Amino acid sequence: MRIAVLSGPNLNLLGTREPALYGRTTLGEIEAAVRTAAAAAGAGVEWLQSNHEGALIDAVQRLPGSADGALINAGAFSHTSLALRDAVLAVRVPFVEVHVSNIFAREPERRRSLLADLAIGVVAGFGARSYLLGFEALVAALRDGR
Amino acid sequence: MRIAVLSGPNLNLLGTREPALYGRTTLGEIEAAVRTAAAAAGAGVEWLQSNHEGALIDAVQRLPGSADGALINAGAFSHTSLALRDAVLAVRVPFVEVHVSNIFAREPERRRSLLADLAIGVVAGFGARSYLLGFEALVAALRDGR
Amino acid sequence: MRIAVLSGPNLNLLGTREPALYGRTTLGEIEAAVRTAAAAAGAGVEWLQSNHEGALIDAVQRLPGSADGALINAGAFSHTSLALRDAVLAVRVPFVEVHVSNIFAREPERRRSLLADLAIGVVAGFGARSYLLGFEALVAALRDGR
Amino acid sequence: MRIAVLSGPNLNLLGTREPALYGRTTLGEIEAAVRTAAAAAGAGVEWLQSNHEGALIDAVQRLPGSADGALINAGAFSHTSLALRDAVLAVRVPFVEVHVSNIFAREPERRRSLLADLAIGVVAGFGARSYLLGFEALVAALRDGR
Amino acid sequence: MRIAVLSGPNLNLLGTREPALYGRTTLGEIEAAVRTAAAAAGAGVEWLQSNHEGALIDAVQRLPGSADGALINAGAFSHTSLALRDAVLAVRVPFVEVHVSNIFAREPERRRSLLADLAIGVVAGFGARSYLLGFEALVAALRDGR
Amino acid sequence: MRIAVLSGPNLNLLGTREPALYGRTTLGEIEAAVRTAAAAAGAGVEWLQSNHEGALIDAVQRLPGSADGALINAGAFSHTSLALRDAVLAVRVPFVEVHVSNIFAREPERRRSLLADLAIGVVAGFGARSYLLGFEALVAALRDGR
Amino acid sequence: MRIAVLSGPNLNLLGTREPALYGRTTLGEIEAAVRTAAAAAGAGVEWLQSNHEGALIDAVQRLPGSADGALINAGAFSHTSLALRDAVLAVRVPFVEVHVSNIFAREPERRRSLLADLAIGVVAGFGARSYLLGFEALVAALRDGR
Amino acid sequence: MRIAVLSGPNLNLLGTREPALYGRTTLGEIEAAVRTAAAAAGAGVEWLQSNHEGALIDAVQRLPGSADGALINAGAFSHTSLALRDAVLAVRVPFVEVHVSNIFAREPERRRSLLADLAIGVVAGFGARSYLLGFEALVAALRDGR
Amino acid sequence: MRIAVLSGPNLNLLGTREPALYGRTTLGEIEAAVRTAAAAAGAGVEWLQSNHEGALIDAVQRLPGSADGALINAGAFSHTSLALRDAVLAVRVPFVEVHVSNIFAREPERRRSLLADLAIGVVAGFGARSYLLGFEALVAALRDGR
Amino acid sequence: MRIAVLSGPNLNLLGTREPALYGRTTLGEIEAAVRTAAAAAGAGVEWLQSNHEGALIDAVQRLPGSADGALINAGAFSHTSLALRDAVLAVRVPFVEVHVSNIFAREPERRRSLLADLAIGVVAGFGARSYLLGFEALVAALRDGR
Amino acid sequence: MRIAVLSGPNLNLLGTREPALYGRTTLGEIEAAVRTAAAAAGAGVEWLQSNHEGALIDAVQRLPGSADGALINAGAFSHTSLALRDAVLAVRVPFVEVHVSNIFAREPERRRSLLADLAIGVVAGFGARSYLLGFEALVAALRDGR
Amino acid sequence: MRIAVLSGPNLNLLGTREPALYGRTTLGEIEAAVRTAAAAAGAGVEWLQSNHEGALIDAVQRLPGSADGALINAGAFSHTSLALRDAVLAVRVPFVEVHVSNIFAREPERRRSLLADLAIGVVAGFGARSYLLGFEALVAALRDGR
Repeated sequence: MRIAVLSGPNLNLLGTREPALYGRTTLGEIEAAVRTAAAAAGAGVEWLQSNHEGALIDAVQRLPGSADGALINAGAFSHTSLALRDAVLAVRVPFVEVHVSNIFAREPERRRSLLADLAIGVVAGFGARSYLLGFEALVAALRDGR
Repeated sequence: MRIAVLSGPNLNLLGTREPALYGRTTLGEIEAAVRTAAAAAGAGVEWLQSNHEGALIDAVQRLPGSADGALINAGAFSHTSLALRDAVLAVRVPFVEVHVSNIFAREPERRRSLLADLAIGVVAGFGARSYLLGFEALVAALRDGR
Repeated sequence: MRIAVLSGPNLNLLGTREPALYGRTTLGEIEAAVRTAAAAAGAGVEWLQSNHEGALIDAVQRLPGSADGALINAGAFSHTSLALRDAVLAVRVPFVEVHVSNIFAREPERRRSLLADLAIGVVAGFGARSYLLGFEALVAALRDGR
Repeated sequence: MRIAVLSGPNLNLLGTREPALYGRTTLGEIEAAVRTAAAAAGAGVEWLQSNHEGALIDAVQRLPGSADGALINAGAFSHTSLALRDAVLAVRVPFVEVHVSNIFAREPERRRSLLADLAIGVVAGFGARSYLLGFEALVAALRDGR
Repeated sequence: MRIAVLSGPNLNLLGTREPALYGRTTLGEIEAAVRTAAAAAGAGVEWLQSNHEGALIDAVQRLPGSADGALINAGAFSHTSLALRDAVLAVRVPFVEVHVSNIFAREPERRRSLLADLAIGVVAGFGARSYLLGFEALVAALRDGR
Repeated sequence: MRIAVLSGPNLNLLGTREPALYGRTTLGEIEAAVRTAAAAAGAGVEWLQSNHEGALIDAVQRLPGSADGALINAGAFSHTSLALRDAVLAVRVPFVEVHVSNIFAREPERRRSLLADLAIGVVAGFGARSYLLGFEALVAALRDGR
Repeated sequence: MRIAVLSGPNLNLLGTREPALYGRTTLGEIEAAVRTAAAAAGAGVEWLQSNHEGALIDAVQRLPGSADGALINAGAFSHTSLALRDAVLAVRVPFVEVHVSNIFAREPERRRSLLADLAIGVVAGFGARSYLLGFEALVAALRDGR
Repeated sequence: MRIAVLSGPNLNLLGTREPALYGRTTLGEIEAAVRTAAAAAGAGVEWLQSNHEGALIDAVQRLPGSADGALINAGAFSHTSLALRDAVLAVRVPFVEVHVSNIFAREPERRRSLLADLAIGVVAGFGARSYLLGFEALVAALRDGR
Repeated sequence: MRIAVLSGPNLNLLGTREPALYGRTTLGEIEAAVRTAAAAAGAGVEWLQSNHEGALIDAVQRLPGSADGALINAGAFSHTSLALRDAVLAVRVPFVEVHVSNIFAREPERRRSLLADLAIGVVAGFGARSYLLGFEALVAALRDGR
Repeated sequence: MRIAVLSGPNLNLLGTREPALYGRTTLGEIEAAVRTAAAAAGAGVEWLQSNHEGALIDAVQRLPGSADGALINAGAFSHTSLALRDAVLAVRVPFVEVHVSNIFAREPERRRSLLADLAIGVVAGFGARSYLLGFEALVAALRDGR
Repeated sequence: MRIAVLSGPNLNLLGTREPALYGRTTLGEIEAAVRTAAAAAGAGVEWLQSNHEGALIDAVQRLPGSADGALINAGAFSHTSLALRDAVLAVRVPFVEVHVSNIFAREPERRRSLLADLAIGVVAGFGARSYLLGFEALVAALRDGR
Repeated sequence: MRIAVLSGPNLNLLGTREPALYGRTTLGEIEAAVRTAAAAAGAGVEWLQSNHEGALIDAVQRLPGSADGALINAGAFSHTSLALRDAVLAVRVPFVEVHVSNIFAREPERRRSLLADLAIGVVAGFGARSYLLGFEALVAALRDGR
């Protein structure tokens, strides 16, 4: 089982950016924890972070054939990028959406995700642990054949 | 560690109500799975389902002193009950919000939860597994002292 | 053929409440008239009125197995109760919505019913007679196998 | 007792137009059924269908002196014609509004009727039978002196 | 100087339609008064009333070559007919808009006129006299070469 | 018969302010013309212009006992001053609203007048002549006992 | 003179719930103070608090015959319960609305009360004293025969 | 192959009406060009222009049996006529929507077409050539069996 | 203890202005009653009414140093004057907002007060007595050190 | 004559992405067809597709001097990219907007194009043929000197 | 070169009013600094502050003939006074708008200025320095002949 | 003191793009002027312009450690890029926002900046000079320790 993990703009700053809101765990530490969990589950991990919308669209377009499922945290693009939504619609790879902060406790424009209705489900608000819970949920869903 | 699990209106019909949307697992089966996970985690479980808004408010008011945290799936009341929100605001017990279906893929009035900004985080869309993932997230957050 | 007739909050006051708007016939008189019509049609009648949203949800959940169709006048809950809508969605029993007053000649928030799109049809504005017309329409629709 | 029955645009296509939505009964068959019911009730029937808004306004203007009440299904003009509303306001003949489909289960712009607040009441969603139920309701209301 | 006076739907009912709102003067009496004023001003009058939107559009299209200016009371079409607006835009004949009632004291949808921004000016609320004041204003504006 | 004519902010600049929009006649010339018309009609005129909302409210409060009717052009306060509306509501002196420009051909916030629904009627768009037409309409309405 | 005092959801938590917002006086202490004031005024007091919307509707329906006036603090139901509004409309008992916090300084959805336009008046923001001021206002209004 | 070409209100003025916006080609010249193209394609043409909404609805109702496809430029009715939309919905004849001007560069109410979602496609903004491009697109689509 | 009482536009007309809505007590009578109550409470009263927004702003700016608290009924300026709100924000003198009528039973634009969220609390709807109840509430709050 | 053809995000997936909506023709096949048509028209073609908004802006900025006109299908950026609109505004090269699907039959946010009011015209809904029809329309418009 | 500096309501409180938001520099100190800068630039300064909208309108009306340009900080009237906007429109004197606080970081109703689209430009958020920067920008723009 | 100056999409076209709106000064000339001012102030300048949102986000992320403050003109991204806002939020470097045109005199979607509430202040509308004024304001604010 191959899992792609895509992270959007400014997530490379995790751990230093507004720690009261996002926590002190860095994206590198999250990657290590996800890779550990993946190894335990016998899954491979493809990891990408980018601040460029086009690079994320390119990455989504490469998913078919290279991944069985994806974990996507598109950051601010979750709320604004119709083009990223189109890419996800086009490839139809099953994915789980994760957010580090509880987007439902934030400003109105962050409560709407343009990807969420295409996802299997959403996990938000548990800090770095959101990635791990989302990974677990994704693997289980893929095993159920969903 | 004592965990209360509160489920709102029509969740007693899980497994028979719109199975294409909500799955075929019954609420009783979910309760059994959560109790198993709780036992493994050394936690006690208080379980309640009600179709009555007042009964759910009463239950939330009883949380302080009887539970360390809660798992709440308020069903349709999530979207309409300001009184239930007030109860949660009053008791300030840490909780995780769960939904069986992916509420972000549904009608607009179901995408707004009056409880979510008060929660530690939200898990939605994974069917019966949402309860288990939410339980896991809640226990971890309580252990972190959150 | 078994028909359940469910009436929501404040309908127990019919005949005394704002008679210029709702007329002078009491709910008891309406019940008697519906029972007479039902007897003529060879149908049984289950009758319930409640001011409690939870009690109405419980009643809707009991419909499968106990009624072939329902006549529902949810009163003010027609306009506000997403939980009642969920119950009706869950049981999928055919029903006709009735209103004593012409809700289309009233305030904006009373012109939207959260149940109406799930109903076979709607009868509104004919005072106590709305129940009888709705009953007639329901029986005919059930006989047509709808 | 003289009853005018006015039907608006495209209702001449009933039975062939979107039968899944509107049923297979033609407007001619409905006219025959209403005339039968009228004969039984000792009432005369004036019947008109037109696709022209002006023709319907002219017809409404002729109602005083020629009809005791009216059954009006203005079709799409129900939702858009302020001029037809003005005509109904001007003549003040008592009428019942009917719709073949359940307009409350359709697109938002069809859920608002510019005539409904002027009507005695509304019957919608029972296919061809809506005309018969509306006719029955109208005759009863006129007999009550309303 | 030739003046066309165009009146829209239901204005043929003036004097009988809602007299508390529109007064008791008939459209025939208004026509006579306008013709008297026109004779005094040495102007000819073309008079038309129709309940048909298409007939009014046809009449507007005939204005160039047959009238130097127009007095238009489009009734309810003032608020809804984009096609009538297009006709007025196309012919570019100077005109004054008149209303018998004070449309600014009525329902919101009657406070917006689709013709008013194309008119020289607007006179509203003075009953039958609105036509005479509007006629006077139009003649003066045409004499000013406007 | 005594008529008060009240003009609001910036109308003292008429003739010099945006002449393409408001014309080249000054407010002094309009006052002279209204006084001439009043003399011919045997009416007295009280004339006031102010840029101060409070001064206009004071003036409206003095109307009962000192004027039989009023001509009001409140300028920009027409669109924003709820306090001026309250003053007009309180004194209940009959009045006609006039505007020099055609407010219906201007920006949206100028198309709503907070006074218009309280007026007998409205005259707008005829430049300086709006005052004279409004004066004529007011005198006629007062003579009709309105 | 008999006065009913009805308090809605979560008001049983007064004194412990968000004391920075609601103060430290308990509902029991308020009841004692109101009873003292009532004794001084020669009035009897009926006291009820409930978290159940249906129970509050039942209580309002019992008012005629058992109370001359009411003091109502419906808590969150003030903002959401059309059914409670209907009950108050039906019984037409004079009442004063009170709120412990200044609802006008809170979130938008708490600034609209579905009961306030039916009340004699509103007192909000004075903590526990709101009940006493409202009681005083109610007794005075009843004595004035209002 | 038989093609009906329907043109709505004011299109008979093409060439004289606002030429800066609509160009100088008349509707007669467009008809000639379309007939030439149709002859080349071996297709017959039925041509209709009307300012009357009802006449256009009648024409749409006649399409089944008399035309294989239609080219529709409903002018201002594109934006307002729900009844015309109903007619098109009822007959389900494949059609292409054309507009002479670029409606997307115009006022907001002209940017929404009530017909466009029912069309195969839309061609707008190319002046008289829009009819020819639309004709070409329609013939090709019909040949593809769409 | 020194209390300033500020009343805004048109309140000088109390007792004569729309008595069905505002009652028959004059502002002079209210002033006398407040002065009597103040004397009993050992407080001094500064009294001002003005129709001029600027005069009220000046008065609010003078409050620090001259008053311990204020009673403010800004009339229509409550709903429109951001400048008055700024003055109140700047001086930060504790105040109670009062309204003679029940503003919650009136038009929407009167239900929003630009001052209310800055006030200790609000009293509305009790006619002249609103001033006395507000005075009582203010004195009590100042005594509590609020 | 040199024509640039710019295609935005995800259009490289044409033929495989949601074929029910977008058809089975690939972008490569469309390019070949456009080049053939261009050769026949004696025009050169510059072809670009990119998923990167910045790359498309760069390309638009290069148009002056390198192309006489453009065919633009900006995909999802049509609906969201104000920066792309600014680029088109800045270079003022004549262009035609094309869409493969009928955007007017899709979700509301896809019905608004930020480029369309700047285009000569729009062609949408004819699958791969939209490019050819748009090319034909562009060449004709350029030949007309538009 | 003569420059008028107009400051609106509550700006006389600068330095004492909400210093965290507006700073501790008084308006007198700002005036002194502007006069120093003006002297250095060889410009004369006319200085006015008022809490009265009418006084500010009067001042704007006096600008032509007495000033070559203006610096305007209308305070809260920036957001509400259409009459002040009209005065500025009428005199057409070039001006720069300044704000002490960053109005873009404040409540929504403060983010819209009714004057800003008439200004050369806007400077906001730099405390007392906003006046100096605005003065510098104004002088430079006047020197450029703008 | 090190200052970064970041310019967004299409600003490389300054001087040629819509000169009536943006002026004739090129971005290169502005850079030279800013460098001259910086040299005089003893400050270093880092200069970047990009049409790529991701490149701007990368640049903002590099600010901490490389610049003491920034001057940001994000062009169209000011109004649409939540991701750029997130980057600015994350790095918390003090900055001034500048715009060449007066964005308050433009279309509504350009009047809202997603960055402005995070800035020290805003300078807009002075053409190329906006950069210089903004630079001056930034240096002064940094010297004040803000």
